[in-house]
Amino acid sequence: MSERVVIDQLQSLPDGPVSVSGWVETVRDQKKVQFVILRDETGAVQLVNPATRPVADSPDPQDADALALTDTISALATGTFLTVTGELKHDERVKLGGVEVKIGALEIAGAALAETPIAADSGLDKRMDWRFLDLRQRRNNLIFRVATTLEHAMRTWWIERDYIEIHSPKLMSSPSESNAELFSLEYFGDQTAYLAQSPQHYKQMAQAAGFGKIFEIGDVYRADPSFTSRHATEFTSIDAEISWIDSHEDVATMQEELLAAAISAVKAKHGAEIEELFGVEVIVPSLPFPRIPLAEARDIVAARGHVTQRTDGDLEPEGERQVSAHVKETFDHDFVFVTDYPFEIRPFYHMKDAATGLTKSYDLLYKGVEITTGAQREHRIEVLEAQAVEKGLALGGLEHYLDFFRYGVPPHGGFGMGQARLLMLLLGESSIREVTFLFRGPTRLAP
Amino acid sequence: MSERVVIDQLQSLPDGPVSVSGWVETVRDQKKVQFVILRDETGAVQLVNPATRPVADSPDPQDADALALTDTISALATGTFLTVTGELKHDERVKLGGVEVKIGALEIAGAALAETPIAADSGLDKRMDWRFLDLRQRRNNLIFRVATTLEHAMRTWWIERDYIEIHSPKLMSSPSESNAELFSLEYFGDQTAYLAQSPQHYKQMAQAAGFGKIFEIGDVYRADPSFTSRHATEFTSIDAEISWIDSHEDVATMQEELLAAAISAVKAKHGAEIEELFGVEVIVPSLPFPRIPLAEARDIVAARGHVTQRTDGDLEPEGERQVSAHVKETFDHDFVFVTDYPFEIRPFYHMKDAATGLTKSYDLLYKGVEITTGAQREHRIEVLEAQAVEKGLALGGLEHYLDFFRYGVPPHGGFGMGQARLLMLLLGESSIREVTFLFRGPTRLAP
Repeated sequence: MSERVVIDQLQSLPDGPVSVSGWVETVRDQKKVQFVILRDETGAVQLVNPATRPVADSPDPQDADALALTDTISALATGTFLTVTGELKHDERVKLGGVEVKIGALEIAGAALAETPIAADSGLDKRMDWRFLDLRQRRNNLIFRVATTLEHAMRTWWIERDYIEIHSPKLMSSPSESNAELFSLEYFGDQTAYLAQSPQHYKQMAQAAGFGKIFEIGDVYRADPSFTSRHATEFTSIDAEISWIDSHEDVATMQEELLAAAISAVKAKHGAEIEELFGVEVIVPSLPFPRIPLAEARDIVAARGHVTQRTDGDLEPEGERQVSAHVKETFDHDFVFVTDYPFEIRPFYHMKDAATGLTKSYDLLYKGVEITTGAQREHRIEVLEAQAVEKGLALGGLEHYLDFFRYGVPPHGGFGMGQARLLMLLLGESSIREVTFLFRGPTRLAP
Repeated sequence: MSERVVIDQLQSLPDGPVSVSGWVETVRDQKKVQFVILRDETGAVQLVNPATRPVADSPDPQDADALALTDTISALATGTFLTVTGELKHDERVKLGGVEVKIGALEIAGAALAETPIAADSGLDKRMDWRFLDLRQRRNNLIFRVATTLEHAMRTWWIERDYIEIHSPKLMSSPSESNAELFSLEYFGDQTAYLAQSPQHYKQMAQAAGFGKIFEIGDVYRADPSFTSRHATEFTSIDAEISWIDSHEDVATMQEELLAAAISAVKAKHGAEIEELFGVEVIVPSLPFPRIPLAEARDIVAARGHVTQRTDGDLEPEGERQVSAHVKETFDHDFVFVTDYPFEIRPFYHMKDAATGLTKSYDLLYKGVEITTGAQREHRIEVLEAQAVEKGLALGGLEHYLDFFRYGVPPHGGFGMGQARLLMLLLGESSIREVTFLFRGPTRLAP
């Protein structure tokens, strides 16, 4: 590769020849001098060129190269990718990093059309149409560097603790969660395949397989017609499942330690830049996170004057916000585990507590939004079958799943967490669309 | 959680009380003494119990608990998950790790049916029917620990070099690679979605977005009707794409360094166990890998006496084996980049070399099998469109993809690598089915 220097390294180099590559963010084409702001994945730098304009009755022949360079810069469209070799100069008067590069030669690598279809302040839908341009914004680039750090910190935490990473199939012969919100496709003529709504079946299978502790980060699919800021038809799910637990509490403990480690890594690497570009302070959560049983959470919501519209006893989005507000005011904490959900509003595979009849499960709320459901799973086949029947499910459709429990399985549990929700809340964004590389929704399949 | 000790820690503990959890691998139910081999995700240990059998005319009353424990052990089915608390004792006569646990109490956590449907020597298809039992084998467990280490080493190598990890959507409005081998589905009534055959479009989009260097590890889909040991309808693809390259050589250099680092990590962590269970020495490849232009590779194949059946000039599987055999004999190397493929046998988006007309691309062979295609991409929109037309493609269907090249894009290239092929060859396995958590093929959608 050419001896390209990435832009955030320029400040540490001495004055002298350099080569930088990036795209044109702005051009200031003044009569006597031309400035180009060039951005790459690490930062931006000012390029400068003393303009050589054609003089009608020049007494001496003009420098053809200098004329051509000036013309080229005048004609540069925003977004054009180019490489400049030139002279780096430190100059504290230059606001952008205290350095500039005097252009020696300029090579256009990929010219842009003159008219850019979006601006930084275009509406979200328009920006999604042109996501590849939208992602050139510095704050959008940061989102994906933060996501990379967040995930890598989680994987590292797990792997240091001997977890196995799995890639479970997303093509299945039967639904993984429910018969609703399910994508199906024709599979080699006479078969029907379903797209996995979660890795639930298979992360439990890994427990029957004796894997002990596993995680998976992968895409799952929901044919969910909703258009809220928290839903997508394809999203990255962060899942873990562990054996030999006593209750969902062991899962919650794992998850809170994991999150504290991951958020701590984000703060260390990107905290200052997040504060600058998102106006958000990254707060590493203290351990343990607060826990509130659902019944108590409902009382808190009511005491705060919110009248629920739901009749099933679950929290609605406003209820979740109220619980989180209470926790923030009372414990100064951004996270809260809401625990002990009744079986009626939980999947059939959540284990019931023998004493209370409530499930050994939790939802994790972060800044007012649910990001996770976790639970101990029912691993006793007779009980599991009875719970499926209680939910009105046909055991035939669950045949392969139920088989996992017939040849020995340890007590186990786990959680699933939406990557985009976590990221959205961490950065104080208003929609998962902003933090998803390419969002997919009912009316959004492209680009 | 209970104070469970994982089995590979037992040897380092002093004699005394311990609690272990796992599943029953075998029971030796002798008259005077009972032995259980208990396995967990880390190893196996011998449990021992002095049998207390009912005596018809016992002069003294027998110990009811001891009788019950003996009965319980006699009735244990293979695969049953249980927890034993007992006394750890070091005894060098015990072949299995030099320790045993005298059973104090035994608690069955998940009983298995008495008849196990498969044995270790069952056929592959039968084992795939009962994959969760098949995965309990020690060597199968090792496969997924190796996969975890391999992937984490790759991610770490990339992230240390400031790559961004992306999750590109697998639901698309148009095919990502070709109109063949394509799964499609109805999407909210009147739309058709296609499952991504690769992240090709979107990893290139990340270059237009100025991300610079990215990677993705995620599942992709091919409606491929073949039943070979190297093909699947869903597989995990390891992809990277980088900007500002001079040619495919920059991609190859990145990939060989990445692979050497990843294989080195596997050797360090699992080398001895791989040698024990797979009879394979993990060899960290030396750098650089050999490179052979395709035309020369064909000559090598011919010189070795193999007559090709193909008329398009590409290597067939036997040709790939011959080239790798030649490289092994000549350079003692397991990898070889075959380079300079004619455009006729490459996708439309591979860049042509101006001088030769051949593509700036490579295949990477590992132990005789192709695991990767890499290339510099054509980023000049007029050339790219002309190449698409040359391949007979309709530009309309590529509309969103082609847009990525209209608003500036740097020169770039990348590779895609099949995770299962890499793992299969590393471990000397005969089929990707053996190294895939749950294989998906034309007749395999379950479990």
